[in-house]
Amino acid sequence: MVKAYFSQKQYIDPRITLVGAGPGDPDLISLKGIKALKTANVVLYDALVDERLLGYAPSEAIKVYVGNPSGDENFSQNVVNQLMVDYALNFGHVVRLKGGDLFVFGRGYEELDYAASYSVETSVVPGISSAISVPGLQGIPVTHRGLSNSLWILTGSDEQGNLSTELEDAAQSQATVVVLLGFDRLNEIVALYQAAGKGRLPAAVIQNGAMASEKVAVGIVNTIVEVAEEQRIDNIGPVLLVFGNTVGLSRQFQDIRRFFQLTACGDGCDD
Amino acid sequence: MVKAYFSQKQYIDPRITLVGAGPGDPDLISLKGIKALKTANVVLYDALVDERLLGYAPSEAIKVYVGNPSGDENFSQNVVNQLMVDYALNFGHVVRLKGGDLFVFGRGYEELDYAASYSVETSVVPGISSAISVPGLQGIPVTHRGLSNSLWILTGSDEQGNLSTELEDAAQSQATVVVLLGFDRLNEIVALYQAAGKGRLPAAVIQNGAMASEKVAVGIVNTIVEVAEEQRIDNIGPVLLVFGNTVGLSRQFQDIRRFFQLTACGDGCDD
Repeated sequence: MVKAYFSQKQYIDPRITLVGAGPGDPDLISLKGIKALKTANVVLYDALVDERLLGYAPSEAIKVYVGNPSGDENFSQNVVNQLMVDYALNFGHVVRLKGGDLFVFGRGYEELDYAASYSVETSVVPGISSAISVPGLQGIPVTHRGLSNSLWILTGSDEQGNLSTELEDAAQSQATVVVLLGFDRLNEIVALYQAAGKGRLPAAVIQNGAMASEKVAVGIVNTIVEVAEEQRIDNIGPVLLVFGNTVGLSRQFQDIRRFFQLTACGDGCDD
Repeated sequence: MVKAYFSQKQYIDPRITLVGAGPGDPDLISLKGIKALKTANVVLYDALVDERLLGYAPSEAIKVYVGNPSGDENFSQNVVNQLMVDYALNFGHVVRLKGGDLFVFGRGYEELDYAASYSVETSVVPGISSAISVPGLQGIPVTHRGLSNSLWILTGSDEQGNLSTELEDAAQSQATVVVLLGFDRLNEIVALYQAAGKGRLPAAVIQNGAMASEKVAVGIVNTIVEVAEEQRIDNIGPVLLVFGNTVGLSRQFQDIRRFFQLTACGDGCDD
């Protein structure tokens, strides 16, 4: 797929570094990620990656955009895997720069596994997970003494495209629940929480977390669909759902609490 | 508590930046965290923070060690809160440098809330969570298509010091389960998994993740206590437990699979 030009004979040391770029803000990449970029011969980067990060790579490094936010299968995972290995074999150090953290629905292991099947050396530089950091930057701690002692991170749909069956258990649990890739399932997830008697549990929807274009909707289960519409949140770019009493700690929740005459943590403290 | 010396009259702009340093490796701090350190007048740092990170702060900045790995209450949270605000009011920019990510059992919100009660401006620089990155660095993706579609992060003990009641639900769920601060509960957690019929589910114990002193035990639920003993894992420093089929993807699991004649994912794939 990739043609190799060896106008000068040179020694190629193929290796692949998977780097998690973290959520939107380009300054949230790790120092280790920057160091990897500085020695890259090739950078393969995602749609979720801020292009300013490419500036850390040498100017002569090859930079290849490999899609894709979600759904758009222009570049399927298989193609990315092959490109990654082909570039490594032909050009040396490939940095595979991915939005977020690599391993929470990041398919990082699939890429490592594919590279290993070609005996290409790999290493991993984890990134900051949006599932934890994006709520945190909005004043929503995913855990907090007295309100939530666990965090359950799920995806909206299973591999067959159906509503993830684990969401029902999650809605009944006491965990703070973060759903990635689930905005198109918001109505169904809300229904699960309502069926669990948690219509007044605090909830948030955050689009394009840690980016300049960030949009945030904060409400309770019964109102969150409406609030997300008011905030004109749509399914373009990453959207994250948060359900749990710690959402009630965000500053934006103060007015809601007054309106609904809720206690300090919705009415879910003693659930 | 903190005496303020103003030998020269100077303008103080009190503010606090909470910075997550990430897991062990000091290069896993974010660029944004480094930038915050470079403008610090005071750095308050945890036991889990690599002291090399203090080198990013100006040499004249005050560096204060405020404990504590876990359990050791030499410096209670209240004392840290007060120090943080006192230093900010007297010296300006305080960087509160914490191991990990700030919000997964990091008590980050308590510190923000305390600072807000003194009207001290705060900002947040999230870190890489050990719950996701430490397994990932060991070749254990917390999610992986066909093996695990969710991640549940819990703590071993509740606020009363009892075994966290949510662990029983977690043991019955299909989620990859990561337990922080739970090594002293390992026997009890193993019993919960055995009661759920998951004695052969892959499991790992990782001490001092991403540090030079890292120790890793990989086994199945029925053997993990013994393997952790063989690896001389103890409760000094951070220890993290992982339960789930994706543990079976780690290279260290290959021999175990052969020995127990397990399928590609323990015998839990169809649980």
